[in-house]
Amino acid sequence: MHYRHKRQVKPGARPGALGEAPGNITHIRVMDYNAEGVNEKTFDSIDEVLHFCRSANTTWVHIQGQAGADDLRQLREAFGMHPLAVEDVMNIGQRPKFEPYDTQVFLVDVVPQRDGHNIEFEQVSIFLGKGYVISFYASDNDVFAPVRTRIHEGKGRIRNGGADYLAYALTDLIVDHGFPVLESYAEELEALEEDIFTERAPDPVQAIHSTRRDLTALRRMIWHQTEMLRELLQDEHDLIQAETLPYFRDAADHSQRVLDLLETCREMSASLLDTHLSLVSNRMNDIMKVLTIIATIFIPLSFVAGLYGMNFDTDSPWNMPELSWKYGYFTLLGVMFSIFIGMLVYFRRKKWL
Amino acid sequence: MHYRHKRQVKPGARPGALGEAPGNITHIRVMDYNAEGVNEKTFDSIDEVLHFCRSANTTWVHIQGQAGADDLRQLREAFGMHPLAVEDVMNIGQRPKFEPYDTQVFLVDVVPQRDGHNIEFEQVSIFLGKGYVISFYASDNDVFAPVRTRIHEGKGRIRNGGADYLAYALTDLIVDHGFPVLESYAEELEALEEDIFTERAPDPVQAIHSTRRDLTALRRMIWHQTEMLRELLQDEHDLIQAETLPYFRDAADHSQRVLDLLETCREMSASLLDTHLSLVSNRMNDIMKVLTIIATIFIPLSFVAGLYGMNFDTDSPWNMPELSWKYGYFTLLGVMFSIFIGMLVYFRRKKWL
Amino acid sequence: MHYRHKRQVKPGARPGALGEAPGNITHIRVMDYNAEGVNEKTFDSIDEVLHFCRSANTTWVHIQGQAGADDLRQLREAFGMHPLAVEDVMNIGQRPKFEPYDTQVFLVDVVPQRDGHNIEFEQVSIFLGKGYVISFYASDNDVFAPVRTRIHEGKGRIRNGGADYLAYALTDLIVDHGFPVLESYAEELEALEEDIFTERAPDPVQAIHSTRRDLTALRRMIWHQTEMLRELLQDEHDLIQAETLPYFRDAADHSQRVLDLLETCREMSASLLDTHLSLVSNRMNDIMKVLTIIATIFIPLSFVAGLYGMNFDTDSPWNMPELSWKYGYFTLLGVMFSIFIGMLVYFRRKKWL
Amino acid sequence: MHYRHKRQVKPGARPGALGEAPGNITHIRVMDYNAEGVNEKTFDSIDEVLHFCRSANTTWVHIQGQAGADDLRQLREAFGMHPLAVEDVMNIGQRPKFEPYDTQVFLVDVVPQRDGHNIEFEQVSIFLGKGYVISFYASDNDVFAPVRTRIHEGKGRIRNGGADYLAYALTDLIVDHGFPVLESYAEELEALEEDIFTERAPDPVQAIHSTRRDLTALRRMIWHQTEMLRELLQDEHDLIQAETLPYFRDAADHSQRVLDLLETCREMSASLLDTHLSLVSNRMNDIMKVLTIIATIFIPLSFVAGLYGMNFDTDSPWNMPELSWKYGYFTLLGVMFSIFIGMLVYFRRKKWL
Amino acid sequence: MHYRHKRQVKPGARPGALGEAPGNITHIRVMDYNAEGVNEKTFDSIDEVLHFCRSANTTWVHIQGQAGADDLRQLREAFGMHPLAVEDVMNIGQRPKFEPYDTQVFLVDVVPQRDGHNIEFEQVSIFLGKGYVISFYASDNDVFAPVRTRIHEGKGRIRNGGADYLAYALTDLIVDHGFPVLESYAEELEALEEDIFTERAPDPVQAIHSTRRDLTALRRMIWHQTEMLRELLQDEHDLIQAETLPYFRDAADHSQRVLDLLETCREMSASLLDTHLSLVSNRMNDIMKVLTIIATIFIPLSFVAGLYGMNFDTDSPWNMPELSWKYGYFTLLGVMFSIFIGMLVYFRRKKWL
Repeated sequence: MHYRHKRQVKPGARPGALGEAPGNITHIRVMDYNAEGVNEKTFDSIDEVLHFCRSANTTWVHIQGQAGADDLRQLREAFGMHPLAVEDVMNIGQRPKFEPYDTQVFLVDVVPQRDGHNIEFEQVSIFLGKGYVISFYASDNDVFAPVRTRIHEGKGRIRNGGADYLAYALTDLIVDHGFPVLESYAEELEALEEDIFTERAPDPVQAIHSTRRDLTALRRMIWHQTEMLRELLQDEHDLIQAETLPYFRDAADHSQRVLDLLETCREMSASLLDTHLSLVSNRMNDIMKVLTIIATIFIPLSFVAGLYGMNFDTDSPWNMPELSWKYGYFTLLGVMFSIFIGMLVYFRRKKWL
Repeated sequence: MHYRHKRQVKPGARPGALGEAPGNITHIRVMDYNAEGVNEKTFDSIDEVLHFCRSANTTWVHIQGQAGADDLRQLREAFGMHPLAVEDVMNIGQRPKFEPYDTQVFLVDVVPQRDGHNIEFEQVSIFLGKGYVISFYASDNDVFAPVRTRIHEGKGRIRNGGADYLAYALTDLIVDHGFPVLESYAEELEALEEDIFTERAPDPVQAIHSTRRDLTALRRMIWHQTEMLRELLQDEHDLIQAETLPYFRDAADHSQRVLDLLETCREMSASLLDTHLSLVSNRMNDIMKVLTIIATIFIPLSFVAGLYGMNFDTDSPWNMPELSWKYGYFTLLGVMFSIFIGMLVYFRRKKWL
Repeated sequence: MHYRHKRQVKPGARPGALGEAPGNITHIRVMDYNAEGVNEKTFDSIDEVLHFCRSANTTWVHIQGQAGADDLRQLREAFGMHPLAVEDVMNIGQRPKFEPYDTQVFLVDVVPQRDGHNIEFEQVSIFLGKGYVISFYASDNDVFAPVRTRIHEGKGRIRNGGADYLAYALTDLIVDHGFPVLESYAEELEALEEDIFTERAPDPVQAIHSTRRDLTALRRMIWHQTEMLRELLQDEHDLIQAETLPYFRDAADHSQRVLDLLETCREMSASLLDTHLSLVSNRMNDIMKVLTIIATIFIPLSFVAGLYGMNFDTDSPWNMPELSWKYGYFTLLGVMFSIFIGMLVYFRRKKWL
Repeated sequence: MHYRHKRQVKPGARPGALGEAPGNITHIRVMDYNAEGVNEKTFDSIDEVLHFCRSANTTWVHIQGQAGADDLRQLREAFGMHPLAVEDVMNIGQRPKFEPYDTQVFLVDVVPQRDGHNIEFEQVSIFLGKGYVISFYASDNDVFAPVRTRIHEGKGRIRNGGADYLAYALTDLIVDHGFPVLESYAEELEALEEDIFTERAPDPVQAIHSTRRDLTALRRMIWHQTEMLRELLQDEHDLIQAETLPYFRDAADHSQRVLDLLETCREMSASLLDTHLSLVSNRMNDIMKVLTIIATIFIPLSFVAGLYGMNFDTDSPWNMPELSWKYGYFTLLGVMFSIFIGMLVYFRRKKWL
Repeated sequence: MHYRHKRQVKPGARPGALGEAPGNITHIRVMDYNAEGVNEKTFDSIDEVLHFCRSANTTWVHIQGQAGADDLRQLREAFGMHPLAVEDVMNIGQRPKFEPYDTQVFLVDVVPQRDGHNIEFEQVSIFLGKGYVISFYASDNDVFAPVRTRIHEGKGRIRNGGADYLAYALTDLIVDHGFPVLESYAEELEALEEDIFTERAPDPVQAIHSTRRDLTALRRMIWHQTEMLRELLQDEHDLIQAETLPYFRDAADHSQRVLDLLETCREMSASLLDTHLSLVSNRMNDIMKVLTIIATIFIPLSFVAGLYGMNFDTDSPWNMPELSWKYGYFTLLGVMFSIFIGMLVYFRRKKWL
């Protein structure tokens, strides 16, 4: 379970306490835009950011990389975030959730990333306030590039939609990241299915086991994501305009479809395991049948041969007189052949051959 | 999973963006009717359609085949559809869903089609507006022919029912398509059941596995269809008149019955697999029992025969004196026969024979 | 799946269309009663009925046998039934359901009938209107005889209860038909259980499999029945008086108890299958153990005997000198006996014997 | 299924009809008490009771044993019970349920009783009216003795609590009867678990099967009990005072804990079966491995010995010249020993030994 | 099931009765604090406590160890607790639950403690009243030390938050105790997984069985904890201020995450068992295959050797003339070798080798 984040905080710690963790911010990118134009700037520390943003336009502050305790303290004071929300940004490994506050909406979501055979969940935290969005992405992957491009191009609603539409655009992007990940699992399972039916798979049990484990972890995350979007839709928070709701409903629909795809993959993997086990047992049965039949035929024949290998004193006419018959050998061979044929017929009748 | 549509849109794409996909419309058929008469016309492109329809009657615009980006843009402008709904028409592979907008109701449903052993889901999209229905069917199958015939014949409510009754008629037709598909699976399973009990089925595991996979995919679709109809009934949208509601309730009831039939098929297939496995294991046990009994009887007998095949020097009176007895051979045969009978009796007592 | 009714209607057919099916009505019995007396008459066709009934008393029209399209059309016009309800009367194979209309309540229920090892579901359709009940029973079984007797005897509420109490009496009778059917399954399972534990059952897998299939179909029907009664209780329809509600609640309670009994039977059958399989595998293991032990003991002994059966030239003093020892044979027997005892002790220690 | 009560009533019988069943009342005990004192009397028939009770105090009429039709008719008239409720008192085998009437509350519950390895459900029926409680216990067990003692002692709320508190006291007593029963199952399962792991259990499959069947029946009863208490708490009936509600909530909590304990037992029994089967299969595998290895080693060796037991005419120098070698025998033994060792090494490498 | 507390109370006992159980209080610690300072004192008996506390500040009375009947009676009178709540403090083994009373809130929770391979649930009972918290911890573990430290340090909200924030701090601490416990199970399962795949685990069935049993018990407790917090959040009790609610919501979120982690562990353990069984069966199959193949090859060969070991009188030219051929021996060896090679080829073709 490489995707399991170990909680760093000990039971009993002060809630909202950030400690002294140093953080590792790659860069901070601020976009300030309205229908007319876009103003984008990249910073290295929170200090500089605070002087830049907070205009009448829509402002998007994106912090790439793991934020440190000091950075978060500065942001918390500047934007009036709730201490518990800031603590969740710091302690990655949260499940997707929606938390409405009076002047802010706080969203946590995870981006599933597959590299090689491992799955990683990278945490995204989004604060939606009046006129601004602050997003945190706890790794180096620049997943939000398509949204930046759309803001620069200015097509569609993105430049006029306000901060809530931007929050939607980010959420939608995260939700849609589920599709290629699920596709990759579906393709693996299809390849495994073909290998199993052509009996080319060397050890499918371990492969299915590891796929199931990943899908179980993924399902829990996607399920919380779907719940998070459902809660957001029901909450009717002031910060989310009525026109933006259909878009969030669309994102919830996508999340539901990812979940559907996931369930299909899970059921397919369970069915694959059953199929594999029954195929293995079929093959084993075939092998056992051959042994059974050959042993069943030759064991009695060998006994007869052993019988005439006994060294009884043939001086007495009662001791194995067959041995001295003229056609004794051929008679015996005939008897053995009849037993052989008789058994074959019996097995054929029973449909064992 | 041949029924799996791969999403064409990349994460982060603009929602409602249609791109430049060319489309492949087979034909467009417009029916304009009221209680007095029917006016039907077939077109090749959207352009011509827009000049034709929009009368005081009920108008049904049906687009057969995959609509292209340009066609949809034209329709979107003419009928004021929501961009997200139009995007869903374009990107087939949606789940059945109901989306109410202010001036339109948008329905997505799928028609299960079985050809040979594969199942395909063909997407139907229906826009219900004031006085008109626009339907899209993303393949060449002309499934709506019976509704056209009913409109021409003019029996029943169809010509007086308005656009919402037409939307019901189309939905009901789609829902009822589930019955023959389920019947075909039920018949396959019954045939398979007979084959399994008469031990004629060559490889039922693979057949059951593929049936289960199809039924799992189908169940998800039918379940979403039932949900879609339930939401439609609860929504009490202005565009659906009170008199039409019992009809939609009837369609929901049919959808529920398809789901029931489906569950029965699924449980039957699970039960079939169990039965098959236990029959195979029973047969294997029968074979093993024969080997066991023959081997258990002859192995000790062979040992005795081997014993008297040893070449001990019979000059010493202590070395195998039995060999020189007059009736040694027959005595030995008698002993062997007693062992043989004794074992048979023992096995019979233990009910192994 | 002999209880599976194939839908006769093709997808796209006109809803409420009755077609030209001829029908097969056995008889029509009309009872017109109040607290003072009962007036009962039997007819052969709908025509005559319509002139007879419709008094101020409670009227019960019962149509026994499959009603034809023409009969239903006549009734529909006379009593103002909804076309979709009439269609459901015609197309048997419906699930139990409750449909409230403005001036009528429409109930569908099924009576499970076991004959031999097959289960059949016979459809009952009941229309409850102001002062009258119209019931349809789609086979020749005269299940409603006890209610007729109670009306004639006039004890209890039946003659004063009105049409809704009559509808209750019929529903209650149908619900209670589940008890003897479930009892018969429970008895079969108990007999099977004893057979399995005494190892007398010849092939319990097939018996369990067919019982499970029946119970699955039955459960779906009873579950819909329970739901139907729950909906009826929640609906508070004008046609059902407050005093009759506790009676319907009692019927719902009975339906729930049938469902409970059914679940117990289902779990018992699942448990029986597991038990049977583990008993079979236990017995097989016993057989294999005997083979294993006998083979394991005699295979090495046979090897030793074979060794001394080799024809090495005993002229060389190095070739099998044991053969010419005076007590060679007994020494060897002693060695073999020690191996035999040693192995027995080893197996006993390992608890394999 | 010894706990299965066969319904005595035939489908179609008059609801509320009591018939002529004679009944078997052991005794009737009436307690009439208030904060000052207790008046207790025992009767043999209903007649005498009716003259005694109905004072301003709290009156508890307890009927021990199966009440007959005549007794119930008398009580029904005296206390104005609903006919359906009285019918449920008569026909034991009801599930726990709560039925509120205008002037009475009717409760049915069951007391699980284990005697030896069988479980029995004894039905308790309780009518709570204004100032009185009438309770029925359908067997000879005097389970309510502790409540009588508490009334006599007069500690706590019991003498001041009124009739509703008395109804609670009886219900709580019944609910708490689940604990010792569950404890006895838990202890059996723990004993079975130890037997299975020490391989001392002779036939755990049958024991687990019968435990599971009992627990399944018990779960259904306890589940209905929990539901019954939940409905009672939600109903807010006039007859139950606000101060008594926390007590009923406590009883509901106990019922829930019994259910929890039951689920734990059920899961433990399922896990035990799996464990047992895998232990049995492990042991069988161990046995088979020994056979396999001994047979695999000695079968080739026996073949070699058989080879040199052939009677080829050694006059020809090409026929088995090894037989006449001086050290032929020892060479052969050496070869056999090498094969033996080689195989052991191979098996050890493969980790089969 | 070492974590199973046996109920001490017999069915029918007086509710709220405390009996005469002596108790075993380790110490009582009272903290009285406000924003300015902290006053802490440790007592040995309840008597002294009652004179000390009840100031205008927030007061926390913590009773460490099992409280006796007399202690609880004193506290009950001093603080006006409900008898049923006090009874639950006494009878440990309760499930986590939330009980709102008019002037107090009563919480029960459990702290899972793992020592070695056993899991124990230690009961915590918390009374939240106006300005005070009374907590009971039924063992010697001083789990609340971190909260005491935070009160002394005075950072964050703890000194200003009032009694409800203190109740939250204690609850949060208890909830967070689930994380390290789950971590320890996850680590065990991961170690077991590696052992299983490297085939180093000696007996994983017993280990998995015991882990599953613990996780099942733990899940039930955590599930009740989550429910308890959900009820607390919905109750909107006067004693819990609006500002404290987000903190309780955070605790509920942590409880949910513990539950998620638990489900992942449970599914992993189920998957591990399947994997182990299929690996064991794979290995067994490999062993059986070797036996099968060696036996299948050598049994016919041994028969042939046995054939030529027969002692037919070679005086007759028809009795085994091959024995006297010049190259008879080598011819036979050649025939045997061909059979050997032929079988190998056949097995290789069938992919059995």
